[in-house]
Amino acid sequence: MNYRKVVGALGIMLMLIGVAMFLPLLWSLYYGDADWSAFLITGTLTVLVGAVLYRLNDIKGSIRYKEAYAIVTVSWLLASAFGAVPFLISGTFTSFADAFFETMSGFTTTGASVLTDIEVLPHGVLFWRSLTHWLGGMGIIVMFVAVLSSLGVGGLQMFKAESPGPVAEKIKPRISDSAKTLWLVYLAFTVAETLLLWLFGMNLFDALCHTFGTLATGGFSTKNASIGHYASPAIQWVIILFMFLAGVNFALHYQAFSGRSLKNFWRNSEFRLYAFLILAAIILVFLNISTAVGQPFAETLRQASFQVTSIMTTTGYATADFDSWGPFVKVLLVALMFVGGCAGSTGGAIKVGRILILLKQSKLEITRAMHPRAVLNSMIDGKPVSNNVVVNVLSFFFIYVVITCISTVIMTLAKIDIVSAFTSVAATLGNIGPGLELVGPTKNYAFMPAWGKYYLSFLMLLGRLELYTVLVLLIPSTWKK
Amino acid sequence: MNYRKVVGALGIMLMLIGVAMFLPLLWSLYYGDADWSAFLITGTLTVLVGAVLYRLNDIKGSIRYKEAYAIVTVSWLLASAFGAVPFLISGTFTSFADAFFETMSGFTTTGASVLTDIEVLPHGVLFWRSLTHWLGGMGIIVMFVAVLSSLGVGGLQMFKAESPGPVAEKIKPRISDSAKTLWLVYLAFTVAETLLLWLFGMNLFDALCHTFGTLATGGFSTKNASIGHYASPAIQWVIILFMFLAGVNFALHYQAFSGRSLKNFWRNSEFRLYAFLILAAIILVFLNISTAVGQPFAETLRQASFQVTSIMTTTGYATADFDSWGPFVKVLLVALMFVGGCAGSTGGAIKVGRILILLKQSKLEITRAMHPRAVLNSMIDGKPVSNNVVVNVLSFFFIYVVITCISTVIMTLAKIDIVSAFTSVAATLGNIGPGLELVGPTKNYAFMPAWGKYYLSFLMLLGRLELYTVLVLLIPSTWKK
Repeated sequence: MNYRKVVGALGIMLMLIGVAMFLPLLWSLYYGDADWSAFLITGTLTVLVGAVLYRLNDIKGSIRYKEAYAIVTVSWLLASAFGAVPFLISGTFTSFADAFFETMSGFTTTGASVLTDIEVLPHGVLFWRSLTHWLGGMGIIVMFVAVLSSLGVGGLQMFKAESPGPVAEKIKPRISDSAKTLWLVYLAFTVAETLLLWLFGMNLFDALCHTFGTLATGGFSTKNASIGHYASPAIQWVIILFMFLAGVNFALHYQAFSGRSLKNFWRNSEFRLYAFLILAAIILVFLNISTAVGQPFAETLRQASFQVTSIMTTTGYATADFDSWGPFVKVLLVALMFVGGCAGSTGGAIKVGRILILLKQSKLEITRAMHPRAVLNSMIDGKPVSNNVVVNVLSFFFIYVVITCISTVIMTLAKIDIVSAFTSVAATLGNIGPGLELVGPTKNYAFMPAWGKYYLSFLMLLGRLELYTVLVLLIPSTWKK
Repeated sequence: MNYRKVVGALGIMLMLIGVAMFLPLLWSLYYGDADWSAFLITGTLTVLVGAVLYRLNDIKGSIRYKEAYAIVTVSWLLASAFGAVPFLISGTFTSFADAFFETMSGFTTTGASVLTDIEVLPHGVLFWRSLTHWLGGMGIIVMFVAVLSSLGVGGLQMFKAESPGPVAEKIKPRISDSAKTLWLVYLAFTVAETLLLWLFGMNLFDALCHTFGTLATGGFSTKNASIGHYASPAIQWVIILFMFLAGVNFALHYQAFSGRSLKNFWRNSEFRLYAFLILAAIILVFLNISTAVGQPFAETLRQASFQVTSIMTTTGYATADFDSWGPFVKVLLVALMFVGGCAGSTGGAIKVGRILILLKQSKLEITRAMHPRAVLNSMIDGKPVSNNVVVNVLSFFFIYVVITCISTVIMTLAKIDIVSAFTSVAATLGNIGPGLELVGPTKNYAFMPAWGKYYLSFLMLLGRLELYTVLVLLIPSTWKK
């Protein structure tokens, strides 16, 4: 491990985080709230620490995989540690465990909260909370790569470690160009959603915060009732649309932006499965709750669409308390928590692309039971899937399930019931936010003991960085000089 | 598909099942119960149907995989259909769904019951119920192969389809010899356990029935309180010991029987993991319940050992209501339900051998993230695991989990809670028997709607025949002439 390069790169990341803290400062001053000093102090401090780390180290030259994994993982840890400070200074939280949980939940775009009353918070704190989603969402590291590579540091490994999903589609030959391109798409969506929400009646502040939460598939709201606060069907449908878009591979969006046919979406088999799963789940949930709830057709359809899209894309916003719905819908939603968004989206969990490979391979194995000597290969979009990718994806699934099981056993030590323990793990590892029962959509994680908050924060990190990136660092040999 | 061979082979199987029905007839006559006629009628009928099917068809010559899969799967279905008839004639059940569920539960060594009062039943019915375990346990097909192959029919494919676990260890070169050998080990254990249980105070009838339930890792008891009926620590420890032995690869037992060193057990890494998991779980459960229950050390240890061994080996006997224990123990036991026994044992679920391959491969994948170009291979007991086996086992795990998820969603339609739905699936697919809540160890499956009983019966079959054997038959091309 080349520690100088790792620490130097972390310095750059901290400077960016520090600069970002001046944005909530501006909102704080605009609204005349008292929390401006928290962001002035922490922002200045963070930039200074980052600058010192950067200046004292040499990050020229290419980096290896191990350094890339360390930079990515420690970036998220440090960002959450420094990002937690404004919450403490402003008095939002008195315990570091709470502040760290909330910030990690933000940067990993999870959206699980330990706040019991959101609406009493000053605007700077609310904005910072949502901004961590936005920064984490597309990846502080995607921007990071763009900056780093313009400094002549090879960013290819980093992009590999960062980009979600099994296959990192190369949009443009140069990696820093790809990062900038994806970032521009992200920015365009941000502007579009903010304008639409503002048009349909949100003020600019709430529109921005909810846009951040949507596009990052995060889930932090500025309201206690989440999106349920806004009765406007238009606002809810706008958020459904953008949650859906945020769960799609951004490379596909880029292709659409750059003038290629919209048919590209439909030619992508991951997108087709993603759209099919969401649609099928909406229909099943709609049929199930329409008999029970007895409300108008349009409202039931909107509730089903909202909750399904929110859970499947791992956003976690809510317009209804789905924990009060029947067991059929609850189990279906919990199953979707494991699917998640497409590869290359801001969604979390296992990802549709992996599920697609798993399904194809399973079909192949059943055929192979009949013809044991046949040489068979899964094809996706006309290309054969390499055996290495198949084994990697299958192993990913196993590790994901094992971590879920062991973590559920661990969480029962917090003296909570089985369903709460299991869904708290599924909702944090999958970067969703709300689960069922004690951690349901109208509840929060405040009651957890401090160790539980740290453990769930670790799961958020593990899930966001697709397991391997973090697990590699648990091998002692990774840390040898 | 060569239908004549399939039907002919099924005829032989039915004759054997029919003959077996004369054993409960003897107990019925001995005790002077009224249910003897049920076995006389059904036994005679089953033998006759079997003889006609056999005589009308030609089973000479070798068979292909597709025929082997069809014979194995349809054998279990037919055995359960014919085996259900004595329950109906004797008046034990009035609905075929109940009788079929109970018999499938027997032949698949699951042990899930729809009976609300076991002790009122006549001896013939009780004995038949336990005998289905014993027949299913080592596999009606292992005997079947021995018979078939002595008729000059190639049994290799059948043995492959039947033998549980990923690697069918060849004990002896000829397949029918292997089958006979394993059957002799099974018989020796049966005599040993029956004698020990009888020695410690059970009558011969109950000793035999509980031996059948133990060695097949079944779980049917002749008492309403399961093994909890017998307060004797000696009886409970004997059953713990034989449940443990039944969960071990019978090829290892054969090696021990034939005079090889007992160290062979320890040299087998699957056995080591099996023993380690059981021991670790016993310690965790013991520590957890000892603080809560406040009973003598020896009794707490025995309760922990019994329940852990029973669940992990997929037996399902109980000496305590583990559903009344804390969530930590419950989640741990549910996790063990997915592990199951060793390959080549009578245990069900995923199997320790597969878990071993999954763990080794996962470790390898984490290392590969650091060295993407390295050629790495998992080793088990000094031998490399072929890529085909790795992919097969990884896919097996995925299919197992997906079936569990989808089935849980389906079972919620029976209007039961999430935990009952999930554990009813885990307990039937894994061939365990009891789950939690509504299907807990002191409860039964009687309340399920008829469709639920058929669906869970299908899961038992799917799990017992290791998924692929049954799933292959769902491909239409398998059935072409």
